[in-house]
Amino acid sequence: MADKKPVNHIRLTSHPDGEAPGVAIHWGDPEPLRRGPVVATLGDPSKRNAIGTHSGAYAIYRALAVSAGKLPPDHRADLTHTSPAAQIGPHPSWSDASRIVSLDPWGAIAPQVFRAFLEQDVDFRPTIAVTRAHINLPEVRDAIAAGRLKADGDLVAPNGDIKVVKAAVEPVWYLPGIAKRFELTESALRRGLFEHTGGMFPELITRPDLHVFLPPIGGLSLYVFGDIESLADRDVPLAVRVHDECNGSDVFGSDICTCRPYLAHGIEECVRTAQGGGAGLIVYLRKEGRALGEVTKFLVYNARKRQEGGDQAATYFQRTECVAGVQDMRFQELMPDVLHWLGITRIHRFVSMSDMKHDAITRSGIEILERVPIPDELIPADAKVEMEAKKAAGYFTRGPVADADALTRVKGRDLDA
Amino acid sequence: MADKKPVNHIRLTSHPDGEAPGVAIHWGDPEPLRRGPVVATLGDPSKRNAIGTHSGAYAIYRALAVSAGKLPPDHRADLTHTSPAAQIGPHPSWSDASRIVSLDPWGAIAPQVFRAFLEQDVDFRPTIAVTRAHINLPEVRDAIAAGRLKADGDLVAPNGDIKVVKAAVEPVWYLPGIAKRFELTESALRRGLFEHTGGMFPELITRPDLHVFLPPIGGLSLYVFGDIESLADRDVPLAVRVHDECNGSDVFGSDICTCRPYLAHGIEECVRTAQGGGAGLIVYLRKEGRALGEVTKFLVYNARKRQEGGDQAATYFQRTECVAGVQDMRFQELMPDVLHWLGITRIHRFVSMSDMKHDAITRSGIEILERVPIPDELIPADAKVEMEAKKAAGYFTRGPVADADALTRVKGRDLDA
Repeated sequence: MADKKPVNHIRLTSHPDGEAPGVAIHWGDPEPLRRGPVVATLGDPSKRNAIGTHSGAYAIYRALAVSAGKLPPDHRADLTHTSPAAQIGPHPSWSDASRIVSLDPWGAIAPQVFRAFLEQDVDFRPTIAVTRAHINLPEVRDAIAAGRLKADGDLVAPNGDIKVVKAAVEPVWYLPGIAKRFELTESALRRGLFEHTGGMFPELITRPDLHVFLPPIGGLSLYVFGDIESLADRDVPLAVRVHDECNGSDVFGSDICTCRPYLAHGIEECVRTAQGGGAGLIVYLRKEGRALGEVTKFLVYNARKRQEGGDQAATYFQRTECVAGVQDMRFQELMPDVLHWLGITRIHRFVSMSDMKHDAITRSGIEILERVPIPDELIPADAKVEMEAKKAAGYFTRGPVADADALTRVKGRDLDA
Repeated sequence: MADKKPVNHIRLTSHPDGEAPGVAIHWGDPEPLRRGPVVATLGDPSKRNAIGTHSGAYAIYRALAVSAGKLPPDHRADLTHTSPAAQIGPHPSWSDASRIVSLDPWGAIAPQVFRAFLEQDVDFRPTIAVTRAHINLPEVRDAIAAGRLKADGDLVAPNGDIKVVKAAVEPVWYLPGIAKRFELTESALRRGLFEHTGGMFPELITRPDLHVFLPPIGGLSLYVFGDIESLADRDVPLAVRVHDECNGSDVFGSDICTCRPYLAHGIEECVRTAQGGGAGLIVYLRKEGRALGEVTKFLVYNARKRQEGGDQAATYFQRTECVAGVQDMRFQELMPDVLHWLGITRIHRFVSMSDMKHDAITRSGIEILERVPIPDELIPADAKVEMEAKKAAGYFTRGPVADADALTRVKGRDLDA
């Protein structure tokens, strides 16, 4: 922008021009060429059929790059050799407009299935990328050393390397479907998203003809262990962990929660299930601090550890609610979409104790046969406050649940200890 | 919103009303009551003195919570017991309007220093939270077992637990300062941010009187080892690693890059320096995939591994540029702000080989005495492509740098291997 003439007209928002957008989206249509690609290009605004743009929250960095003259505003991605490294779908769920509403099921293979639109010079891009990787975790090496896992030389190498297929998924919201999930009218949802972000994207209001929104939030990553095609086969054993980001534990090993230990246990369960002829899946969602963000999370830590009586399971949820106004903002209602995208209809071992995740998945029509709690020996001492509070609030456990009195006696460390 | 009357007037953007906003911000003013708090409340829009709202990208989840009727739109945080668990600043850098432009230096102690505004019913909140934690990493336990680190019973417990002060920092952009960093006019920056996000926040255009913007992007976390007050003492040895998020390696241990091994090495250096009477600092920035996001990153992985001649150091950067249009979008120009916020003026051991990070820090006026490369034995085999390409492009090394011919012979694994 820096070198453009500053007198150019700035258009504050757009309005429907009476004609349908260049390429219509018929969400849920089983025929890709009728479904149509999501076009969020900034090169030719008149061709857009979606609100917002690509890369989630990283769109701001892209705007900075263009502003700073580092990136041509009309750059088009050269997608040579980028197609998915493993085939996923299409599955019957892809053609159910209400089953998948928070990602684009055609997002990984858009350049292939919408090729006819490319030839019409329509600028669209994949919102999902699928690749292969080798991953290696110290906890898996420990599991091999302890004899809990075996290196088979195929899925697991002697050095602990595990072969996976992994995918990154950008959020793509079909607004009528999102509204329905939350039992809202589409216009109430649009207005809420606009007004309660401080006025983000006036097109949410002025373009009721555009029903797809690419929100500037984090997306998700997924890791598949074993044969990816068997995920959709309900008779092949499948272990699944749905994990919400917790940077403090997942990366730095903070001992106030069970996040990384449970994630590592989930990976171990996935490997074991895959080695036994089944498959495993880890879904990692960018929802730091229950989607309240890490600043709120750390404020809550301080309030928990300084409150009268000290950090205790009895008041675990209250401290979050005081600061944030809610206990949780993760909206598990949208989470099952990725499972449906993979064609999953049955989970044999669900490596999570969360009743919210369990209920969201089963309500969406996926069967869960067994729930796998975190082994007691993996729970850090200071994380017992969280664990007992959650079990008392409905988390799955095979053991006893503390009563109100006992919850006051489950104590964590002081802030300065 | 669901239960409100749908006939309410929707205001698409706001305009200056001829008067200054309720509370003015004088960025860089050393006197907090003249500086003024950042007010991004959604409860009373007329009181706002910033564009956007709190929690970075998580603002969207908050809007969803309000829309779904889970959170009262006028909720105010109860901040009892949430104040910082360690004192940081004020430092001289806080009163230099051009030194810190991408975070609010008063963000951690806002409720304390701006108390007079609270009494006038101004609704503002902290944008930084400072807490204490115990962290435990398998790599640190290995370092203790190998004798490279010692458990001292104070900083490091026998089980490997490390005591840290940690902070989470939300992005707060002072637009005139950001524009200056990128040698843009403020209006060119505002227009670029608006237009190249697909029309996010028309107030960027219509409210030239508001100079502070809370962008919906990820912020940063920081971990301090040893005495936090000594960070600002240039005579106390300080080890620093500035780490950009890489979920695939940091959490899952992917072997295509050196991110987690280098991070773990950085933590080891920080602990060792703190045990020797100095201090250590890890800064963790939410800039996944060079701020291009993980979808772009995985597309690039596929293109690298499928290109003619296979994955090789010679074409490492080109593949990113084909897909994304740039090699990197991290804008290290903004990164040193957090170091200045902590009062750092000298880094004794800089645990990074990045010339971009090094140059950004030294150009901002912070001295770097020594650079610490990743030990060779920590580089996964498949990550040699990245490492040799980066060294050839200017990354710091004490060893040899491959020439163009040699770079074609540094090869990575095939996609299907």
